[in-house]
Amino acid sequence: MSNNNYKFEGWQALGTDSIEGKLEWREYEPKAFAEDDVDIKITHCGVCASDLHTISGGWGAVDYPQVVGHEILGEVVRVGSAVKHVKVGDIAGVGAQNDSCLECGQCKANREPYCDKGQVGTYAGKYYREGPGKGAKSYGGYANYHRAPGHFVVKIPDGLDHAVAAPMLCGGVTVYSPLKQYGAGTTAKDVGIVGIGGLGHFGLLFAKALGANVTAISHSESKKADAEKMGATRFIATHSGKEDDFKPYKRSLDLIVCTTNDVNMPILGYLSLLRPGGNLILVGAPEKPLPSLPAFPFLMNNVHIGGSAIGSPTIIKEMLELAAKQNIKSWIEKRPLEDANQAVVDMHNSKARYRYVLVNTANGGKL
Amino acid sequence: MSNNNYKFEGWQALGTDSIEGKLEWREYEPKAFAEDDVDIKITHCGVCASDLHTISGGWGAVDYPQVVGHEILGEVVRVGSAVKHVKVGDIAGVGAQNDSCLECGQCKANREPYCDKGQVGTYAGKYYREGPGKGAKSYGGYANYHRAPGHFVVKIPDGLDHAVAAPMLCGGVTVYSPLKQYGAGTTAKDVGIVGIGGLGHFGLLFAKALGANVTAISHSESKKADAEKMGATRFIATHSGKEDDFKPYKRSLDLIVCTTNDVNMPILGYLSLLRPGGNLILVGAPEKPLPSLPAFPFLMNNVHIGGSAIGSPTIIKEMLELAAKQNIKSWIEKRPLEDANQAVVDMHNSKARYRYVLVNTANGGKL
Repeated sequence: MSNNNYKFEGWQALGTDSIEGKLEWREYEPKAFAEDDVDIKITHCGVCASDLHTISGGWGAVDYPQVVGHEILGEVVRVGSAVKHVKVGDIAGVGAQNDSCLECGQCKANREPYCDKGQVGTYAGKYYREGPGKGAKSYGGYANYHRAPGHFVVKIPDGLDHAVAAPMLCGGVTVYSPLKQYGAGTTAKDVGIVGIGGLGHFGLLFAKALGANVTAISHSESKKADAEKMGATRFIATHSGKEDDFKPYKRSLDLIVCTTNDVNMPILGYLSLLRPGGNLILVGAPEKPLPSLPAFPFLMNNVHIGGSAIGSPTIIKEMLELAAKQNIKSWIEKRPLEDANQAVVDMHNSKARYRYVLVNTANGGKL
Repeated sequence: MSNNNYKFEGWQALGTDSIEGKLEWREYEPKAFAEDDVDIKITHCGVCASDLHTISGGWGAVDYPQVVGHEILGEVVRVGSAVKHVKVGDIAGVGAQNDSCLECGQCKANREPYCDKGQVGTYAGKYYREGPGKGAKSYGGYANYHRAPGHFVVKIPDGLDHAVAAPMLCGGVTVYSPLKQYGAGTTAKDVGIVGIGGLGHFGLLFAKALGANVTAISHSESKKADAEKMGATRFIATHSGKEDDFKPYKRSLDLIVCTTNDVNMPILGYLSLLRPGGNLILVGAPEKPLPSLPAFPFLMNNVHIGGSAIGSPTIIKEMLELAAKQNIKSWIEKRPLEDANQAVVDMHNSKARYRYVLVNTANGGKL
């Protein structure tokens, strides 16, 4: 059914200075194929902020070489005998998680990102389940092929543009997952999204799609027009120079999904926007600790800070189906895979509006 | 129906040094009586850590003089014409909240502690609703009489010992309220209580009463035997000197109610005890900010920090009925009201096991 005579090649980070546009195109050895694995011939891969934190080692020491990229989409070219939900020729995607124990309470409850034994990232991870791939490193999607355990491979719904779908696989679901978990549009009617970037723009799109009243929260008003096009009906600029940017909006939100990486974010201001019982959910991961906070605002307002990581295959599937049904479009710029280095540098300089998607034209992707 | 020829006298804090045993017994002018008010002839008043923070000004500048005490219980001696749920001669109690707007969404939802216009504390507050008492200061229960808006006066169920009931009015409900809100015994089967003191001992008693499996979490093992008597079936000593006191108990709790005021509490350790989706709810209010925390543990484990303040009259009523039904006993030491100064000093020195109750024998309270 398939031709397995392909080599795995990708843009490799070899050290911390790779972030300066020094990724190198090289061959690598993927995990040994297991009967529950799937190989994908990559046509599209989104560029995620996590890629940059990993290339640079900003989140911690990295076991170079690495091939980053975890918004992987392409054609299924090989399917293990134990995999039933995709077949050769299907268009399928893989997000930021490549494996987990599949046996613990979290995994059984479709909460694989919180696996008790730990999730294996789509890159910078190490497979630990028993099988031929045990102990191997995981390699991501700035590449021509990707091998992944089938449990984490999701079929892309018909009618959803491939370049639009790719960045939803991590960026999209990272905000969609907490929006769903915390009741956006149902128990949480009024939702705020902090940061209008790669993640934040998905936050606005999906919060609206789920039926919430959406408030965009950003440093300045520079992205106000875009935010309104994405679904925001209210906009709060938090660095206006006014004495208190938050006061007029006190206790007007039920849920805030916070996508910024800025360690100096005005967390107490965000908390003041929440109604009692409300949640401020962090999905961006600053490289340094958050500011020290007093306990009183939590006590007096019954508000919460929490965090959420990516999304399970089940949630990815649900999100993609919603996107197909409501014709939700990621705001993307396509970049040729061969220009991955420049795309990384531009992303690092916050130039993306709002997500880059690397397109592998050699594999049939269309710019 | 009542003899209103009584004077309001109480132990007054006159400055920050009052914490050193310098409260003075003096007369004061309560708020003007309104037709929705109730007067209580006090027989019992619990000693709460909040009293000490207020006497000393530790939580912020204080408008001296103050009469503290907000676990007030006694006989109803005057009832305004608009009050229907208590009558002269009833035994009734007042907790830490004396008033609120009674009109906002929070108040309408029996969430008066989170009133949009702010709660009026039973002491150190200022009444703001329209009426004869508007603008007056509130005075607490280290006194012979207490005047309170009837909405915040709760009838004590028959069969509940008065000295046992008094400290539940603030200390008890401060932990009972989050235990209920976060599903102790239902959605949160495994519950931890940090700190085995005045609040924490109620945490153990009520978590057990609600049907949870209860874990006590304390610095040392010194209170282990007591904690087990209060209902704990597991005990974690967090300063044992072992490399990691938390590791054996990782992800074993659904909810932690944290009663400590220690700003150096090991919050990351506590968070590690939570299952994904779990909540660490602060009810103790340290005078200084919490330690700075990294975002990653929140993201990777989907855990939350929140806070909870006291409890509404509805929740107090529910708690007292549960206490009466299950014969729950506060662990108290009775102290004569005339020795309030010594009780405060002893409480400040953490000598209470686990709650002091001031008894006004002149008003019929029994030591």
